[in-house]
Amino acid sequence: MTQRYFEDLRSGERLQSGQYIVTEKEIINFAREFDPQPFHLDATVARQTMFGSLIASGWHTAAITMRLFVQTLNFAEGAIGLGVDELRWPAAVKAGDVLEVETEIVDLRLSRSKPSHGIVRLRNVTTNQRGEIVQTMSASALVLRRSDGITR
Amino acid sequence: MTQRYFEDLRSGERLQSGQYIVTEKEIINFAREFDPQPFHLDATVARQTMFGSLIASGWHTAAITMRLFVQTLNFAEGAIGLGVDELRWPAAVKAGDVLEVETEIVDLRLSRSKPSHGIVRLRNVTTNQRGEIVQTMSASALVLRRSDGITR
Repeated sequence: MTQRYFEDLRSGERLQSGQYIVTEKEIINFAREFDPQPFHLDATVARQTMFGSLIASGWHTAAITMRLFVQTLNFAEGAIGLGVDELRWPAAVKAGDVLEVETEIVDLRLSRSKPSHGIVRLRNVTTNQRGEIVQTMSASALVLRRSDGITR
Repeated sequence: MTQRYFEDLRSGERLQSGQYIVTEKEIINFAREFDPQPFHLDATVARQTMFGSLIASGWHTAAITMRLFVQTLNFAEGAIGLGVDELRWPAAVKAGDVLEVETEIVDLRLSRSKPSHGIVRLRNVTTNQRGEIVQTMSASALVLRRSDGITR
């Protein structure tokens, strides 16, 4: 897969990720390690909560979103996260859900402190197999420019 | 450990978490699963990047922060994340770092849509063993009220 540089992006461009199937085992394993709360850990307990079944930690959804994003954009030498805003989880992620991410490039500017890099502002929207939005976020990341600075 | 309810919190209150030691193995495992970028995956490659050594994914730091937060606050029936803002990573997390989280309760109000719950606004600051801030974030969460609504 071709590696992408700052110059390869266009403001307003939208990119669609591949798919990720969320399993009950993964939901529970992530929760045990990072978010040990009853509605993420145990399907029987979760049935008695307001969600009615086991749901994934929001941080698990965020991590899956990162994986789909990284695979889709494939920046040369990676993308260095500067910050995230407006991270929301409007619907729960459950076992068997199939997630995908649409990335919109919101803004592009050169980095003043690192002339070898540009700063990308983007918005990621994560949806399930029914098209329901399970996560939205805005982010900024530092990505490498082509050494010749030429747009191809 | 005592379970906490909405009524047990005070605006302006600060709570200090336990500690979490970050290992190289965990950094690499998390990156393989969720953030497969060179500076998170391979210590040799990472040495040639601007970080000079392997660094943890920001989403890994966020997940570790959640674990420390959940263990410290221990809300009855858990805390349901409504959203996160101003998530920043001012310094990199490296293997061997010992992280802890200070939670500040910023605001407390009753939920209009769920009278059984209150909404907590909080700020989490994650630091390493040298006191350097590695992550900051603001968040809102839904937490259970005592059934009698009485402050103890």
